[in-house]
This record gives sequence, structure tokens and C-alpha cells, in this order.
Amino acid sequence: MLTLSDVHAAREAVDEVARQTPLEHSNTFSEQTNAEIHLKLENLQRTGSFKIRGAANRIAQLTDAETEAGVVTASAGNHAQGVALAAERAGVDAKIVMPQYAPVSKVDATKSYGARVVLHGADYDAAQTRAHEIEREESRTYVHAFDDEFVMAGQGTIGLEIAEAIPRVDTVVVPIGGGGLISGVATALKGELDDVRVVGVQASGADSAARSLSKGRRTATTGVDTIADGIAVSEVGERTFPVIRERVDEVVTVSDEEIALALTLLLERSKTLVEGAGAVALAAVRERAFDYDDGEVIVPTLCGGNIDLNQLTTVVMRGLVQMGRYLRIRTELKDRPGALEGLIELISTNDVNIYAIRHDRTSRDIAVNAADVVLDLETRDEDHGAALVAALEEHGYDVEVLV
Amino acid sequence: MLTLSDVHAAREAVDEVARQTPLEHSNTFSEQTNAEIHLKLENLQRTGSFKIRGAANRIAQLTDAETEAGVVTASAGNHAQGVALAAERAGVDAKIVMPQYAPVSKVDATKSYGARVVLHGADYDAAQTRAHEIEREESRTYVHAFDDEFVMAGQGTIGLEIAEAIPRVDTVVVPIGGGGLISGVATALKGELDDVRVVGVQASGADSAARSLSKGRRTATTGVDTIADGIAVSEVGERTFPVIRERVDEVVTVSDEEIALALTLLLERSKTLVEGAGAVALAAVRERAFDYDDGEVIVPTLCGGNIDLNQLTTVVMRGLVQMGRYLRIRTELKDRPGALEGLIELISTNDVNIYAIRHDRTSRDIAVNAADVVLDLETRDEDHGAALVAALEEHGYDVEVLV
Repeated sequence: MLTLSDVHAAREAVDEVARQTPLEHSNTFSEQTNAEIHLKLENLQRTGSFKIRGAANRIAQLTDAETEAGVVTASAGNHAQGVALAAERAGVDAKIVMPQYAPVSKVDATKSYGARVVLHGADYDAAQTRAHEIEREESRTYVHAFDDEFVMAGQGTIGLEIAEAIPRVDTVVVPIGGGGLISGVATALKGELDDVRVVGVQASGADSAARSLSKGRRTATTGVDTIADGIAVSEVGERTFPVIRERVDEVVTVSDEEIALALTLLLERSKTLVEGAGAVALAAVRERAFDYDDGEVIVPTLCGGNIDLNQLTTVVMRGLVQMGRYLRIRTELKDRPGALEGLIELISTNDVNIYAIRHDRTSRDIAVNAADVVLDLETRDEDHGAALVAALEEHGYDVEVLV
Repeated sequence: MLTLSDVHAAREAVDEVARQTPLEHSNTFSEQTNAEIHLKLENLQRTGSFKIRGAANRIAQLTDAETEAGVVTASAGNHAQGVALAAERAGVDAKIVMPQYAPVSKVDATKSYGARVVLHGADYDAAQTRAHEIEREESRTYVHAFDDEFVMAGQGTIGLEIAEAIPRVDTVVVPIGGGGLISGVATALKGELDDVRVVGVQASGADSAARSLSKGRRTATTGVDTIADGIAVSEVGERTFPVIRERVDEVVTVSDEEIALALTLLLERSKTLVEGAGAVALAAVRERAFDYDDGEVIVPTLCGGNIDLNQLTTVVMRGLVQMGRYLRIRTELKDRPGALEGLIELISTNDVNIYAIRHDRTSRDIAVNAADVVLDLETRDEDHGAALVAALEEHGYDVEVLV
């Protein structure tokens, strides 16, 4: 099983390629939770996530012959970029197999770090199969995304950085997908500090570690479904699971809505961009998915920031809906002069701002002399939105709340 | 005229309320520009912008009687929040007049810092008139957003921080709206360092300082229009202009498209959120709006991060369009089985991803047996988008490029 000295041994290789990321005290989230919150900003890591740490340590172990033959892996996301940059810095040739329809931005980022990208198959499984073929055909070393002790040790260096910066930390909160990050971090923290708690967080739509712990054996989740694609893993690792069982104190889950809300708050209040997986640790703290005391020193690990900017738009809208600050309604107007102006005035007198109006006179679903209107609205909170809907209904409008 | 010792004198009052913001080296932007770029992350300042520095210093100068009577100002944005928090920390009552239709999020943020918000008038001018009435009626001290030497001195503490952190800096790039920030920063830098250049940046739609410099006297811009609302000021200040003329080496402008692109890159690559005004300094560097040498040490000042999350969506789309990574087209389908599938397949074989499809069978503008389709597409760059459009036209589609 992974040891503290494995993590210490990883440090040099990791520090050659990765950076020590900031730990920032957050006034906003400390006030919201009555705890003392320090954010580990691993979203500011090179390549935008922690994956480069494990990749760097794995690649540092290659023999001369292995270095010559190069590495291969399959990934549609952060692991691809981590392996690409770590390999380039080590002068090792890397082939990364990505699914055919991987986002252009991820493909380009991976190429920009010097890797050769092979587009293959409709999904991750097909890409992985191809990567293992390449492993055999070209005698390349396959770099696993999590289930490898050198990878786990590399990720664990985050734990060393936290222990050094805040030795009085009470609780460190860490996302779990396959378990590579948390197994390394827990090993580092439990080894370095006497009295520290490690809490793991999964998306409720990808909760293999939580299920596996409650059943006492590794259990896969079928139909993984979460906006946190960085931890959308169907089964916790064979090598990571025993470490999690022994060294992680608790594993909790958060919903996609809670993730969207935490991500939106980090953007709006802390001005920092995380991906879904990067928001789960803070979401668990904010939602009190586990118990903690007033004043407790808590470090949520914001493990990555690589969210597609188009997806970001959707997630932020969900976050604002959670806060009651975004409301989309559909209603119907009598198609007579001034009908739209009357509606707009009613909305204004309720102190609600209008972001967008879609006015469709041709929809087939409604009466010929009426028009369908969809309004995107900015409200203060849920009560404010509810008051507007009530006021509209009082004035005879039929209101359908869309989000 | 403002002096270096005014800025030094401001430091204590500023440090009591504001934080010293990070200066971060950027690999991404250093590589893009062949310069050595360090970002002054003032978007991470309390209240989300530098305005709290000037407000804190102004409020620290109040006599006992003035402290008792309180302060007043007019603002729809960052200055409101800066004054609110600075006043609260100093135990001074603050009234902030905001236009009637100010965004709910800004009103709430200002209230959350302890100020009383007065909603008045349709625009900023009306709010300002009301604020000056309150100044007289209640004998409150009016805190100007920029044209006040104590405010200018407070903002100048950013210059002290830069000079201390990187004394070998060659060029500091600073946004200009009314000129409060740059007059303080230039005074600090030119006083502290022997050989430093200060470059001012305006939005091309709000370029009063640039015009004033070329005419040799203060000149207002009519019809101010820019996405950088934090610097959308029609006329540079009476007190700031002479300082700018004497101590700023060059003033340049950038377009809204260049601002949107810089903001989008900061979000995607540096994972940090700025508002439009917070992006202009980096935009000027990226666009080489002024000359610089290879390896030159340049500090763009990212002065604020308070962008409305709904506006962010629009700006990011404009940024992606600039990069050639977002394309919206309209085309027409024969309304027969399989027509949409055929189009989608053609797009896929060109390695273009589809974000969204709007398929409208009822629009009145097109033939009865045809259907209008609007597609939001992810492309790699401009050439990739152009190649897709050419391929579609070759296959007989009429294509209208919408953005």
C-alpha cells in the first residue's frame, strides 16, 4: 500500500514540472459557513488540473528503454493534458488517444503541450481499447489516470503542500473520481499530521467510492451522470480503494445543482474559474454534507479549472437559478397594440430586470390572435421571483415557470 | 499636484481595509507576447475592484464632524461597493445613490457592505444630481469616484505594491476611465523607480483621456459606448488630467472585440475572472497597441472583476468568435425525412462540433416545405469555420453566417 515516503519521493519529479499552487483564505466562504475556509487553488496548476503531478512522477520512473519507446494513454480531459506536458518536459514521446468527438479545445490543448493525438472511437472505452493496442504494438508504457502507485504518490504532493502551509488544518476535503488524488493526499496528510480529517466528495451521479465503502467491496456505478466530468468515473480503482478505506474518514456526495451553485459562487465571489469536479469539495462544505464545528479550519481542494466555456454558460445559469436570481417564464399576450409594453411595465414595477425577451407570433400551439412570450428575468431571490409570478397571475397572465 | 508622499501617506488607511493583491507571472501571456508578463490581480481585491483603496483614504481624512454626518456618493458600480465597505469599516454612515434600474446584484452587494442604497433616476446623471442634493440637505461629504486627490492617492498604493514586488519592471499598463487609478499609480511608480514606463489604456468607445492629450486640453467624449462599463466615463477629471499629462508616457485605445478576447483568454487560460475594464490592459499588450521589446517586463493591471454573470456569457461568446472558435450560421433544409440528419453528418465529417440546433418549421420567411435551421458550432479557428461554410455551399446549402 502507498506510503508517506512514496509521496515524499515523488516531490522532486513533480516540482520539476508542476507548480506549488496557492492556498487562499476566503472571507466569503468563511462567513457563509462559520468555519475558516482556505481554498487550495489547484485549478491554477499548469494544464489546469492536478493530473500533471501524477503523470510527472509516473514518467520519472521510466527506464531508458521505456523512455525511448514513449508513453500512451486514453483520456478526453485533464489526464490527457497532464501526460502531454509531463512527457514533453521529460523529452518522452506521448500518444494520447481521445474519442473522435472530443471537444476541439481539449484536443488542441493536448497537442499544444507536444503530444500526438489519436482520435479514435465514439467514447472513452473505445479510445481506451485503442490505447492498449498501441501499448502492445509500440511497446509504449500505458500511463493510468489513477490506478497506479506512482500516479497516486504524485497527486499526494498536494497533501504535503497543505500540511506545510497550514499544519493546524482540521479537515481537508478532496474530490473522488477513480481515487488517485484522495489516496495520495490522505496518505500524505495522515503521515504528516497527527490530527487531521480527510473527507472525500463524489458527485451523486458517480458515487462508486461511496457505494463501495458501504458495501465493503469495490462496486461500479452504472449510468454515470454528472456535470462534474472530471470525476465521472464508473468504478473506484483497485489500488486506490484500499487506501481510501483505510485513510479517508468519510465520503459524501453532492448533487449537480449543488455543484453548479458552488461553481457559480466561486466565479462571482472569488473570481476564480473551476470545472465541475473542482467545485464539489466546496459544495460539500457549503451544504454541510459532513459535520464540522464553528471556526474549524477546512481546506476544500479545487482540483481543476478546465471547463468548456460553452458549458460554463449553462452551469452558471443553473447556479443562478439555485440562488433564485434567474427566472425563465413563458406567458401569453393578447396580440393587440401595447400588450407587450403592459407586461414589461408590470415586471418593472416589481423591481425585476429583464435580460431577454423572445416574442414569437407564429408558434402553432397558441391561439391565432395571441403571442407566446418567453422572458429571462433577474430576481433578487426566490421570494422575489415568487412575488412576481403571483403579481402576473393576479393581472390575468397565465405563467409557466421554465427554470 | 499629487505627490509621491501623498500616496505613501495613503498606505496605512488603505491597508486597514484593502488587501495587497497578488502579482502573478503568466506563462501563457508571456509566450504569446515574447515579453515577461506579470498580472496585477486587483480583481481579487475586496469588493472586487481597486475602488476601495481610494474610498478608504478619502474617508480616513474626515473630521469628527464630517464622520458624524456621514458620506454620500452616486455610482452604479464598483465605487458604490468600495465606498460602502470602506465606510462600514470606519464606522461612517454611507448613502449610495444608484439609478433605479441598477442590476439587483450590484444593489445587493452594496447593501451587504452596510451602506444605505437610494434608488433614484433613470441614469447615472440623475442619480448624481440626487446625491449632491443629499450632500447639501444632510451635510454629508461627497466621495468622488476619481477627481479627488485623496482618492487618487489611495489608488496609487497599487503602484507602490508593484514597485516593491518587481523593482525591475519596465512597463506598467493601467486602465483609464476618469483617471483616478492611473494618476495615483503613475505618481507612485515615477517617484519610486528611475526607469519605468506607464501606459494608459482606454476603450475606444470612451477615449476622453486620449482625445484630451492629443488636443492639449480636457475634452469630453459624446456617446460613450463600451462593454468596459467600469471605465465608461465621458470626461477625464480636472485633477487627474494634469497628472496624466505629466506622468503617463502614452495612452492607447482598444476595441470592444479586443477586450472581449482578452477577458475570454484570462478566464480560459488563467482561470481568473475580470470585468471589461479589468481586461483592457492585457488587451493593449496582446494587440501591441504600444511598442515593447522582447523580454520586456510588463505588468498589466487587472483592475476589477465585477462582471454580471449574464453579461459574461455574451462577452465570452464574442471572445470565442474572435478566436474563430464559435460560429453561428443559418441555413435552410428541404422538409423531407432525413434532411437534418444529412446536414449533421456533413458537419461532423468536417470535424466541427454542434453546440445547439434551433429548428423552426413555422417561420413565415421561408418556403412552406422548407425549414430554417440555426446552428451554434465549435470550430478550431477561422480557417476551419470557413472550410465548413465552403463545404456546405458546395453541397447546395445556402449559408448565412450570423456571428
